Amino acid sequence: MFEILNTEILGYTAATLTTASFLPQAILTIRTRDTEALSLSMYSTFTLGVFCWLIYGIYLANNAIIYANAITLFLSLVILSFKIYNSFFKRDEVEKL
Amino acid sequence: MFEILNTEILGYTAATLTTASFLPQAILTIRTRDTEALSLSMYSTFTLGVFCWLIYGIYLANNAIIYANAITLFLSLVILSFKIYNSFFKRDEVEKL
Repeated sequence: MFEILNTEILGYTAATLTTASFLPQAILTIRTRDTEALSLSMYSTFTLGVFCWLIYGIYLANNAIIYANAITLFLSLVILSFKIYNSFFKRDEVEKL
Repeated sequence: MFEILNTEILGYTAATLTTASFLPQAILTIRTRDTEALSLSMYSTFTLGVFCWLIYGIYLANNAIIYANAITLFLSLVILSFKIYNSFFKRDEVEKL
């Protein structure tokens, strides 16, 4: 029981730390909508990966994995939408794709 | 059996995708050693988070979590070392900490 609790705390700590480290970039991009410095292929790969982690977490019924990846997926999808919009309709140069 | 195999494949797919999305940044930073644009506090938080995920994966005996986070931790530690070195001994401005 005590060990399960400790493992859960470790999982939530990990989830909070990696999600928190992604937040400033996400907030900056969402506020400025400037996606010039971001790579579309890297962000697409990352978003797809986070989506797979989320489904994996749901399969394992692991709340730490679900919680971390649900938040990150949401933020990542918002940023990816801005990037796709800017790449095809607006500011970003095509060679930066 | 088939479902366990599918879940494992999903975990390894997730691990490969998120690790792969981190690789270009890591290779660029390791090659150029330019860490000016990276945030020390964000990178420290990320590295600590990945370390916690790794320990969590070892606790759960989950190979996908171990494999993804071991590679990312190694790369992240190399980048963090460059960042700390550059911040305190070399190029990066203190206000960028």
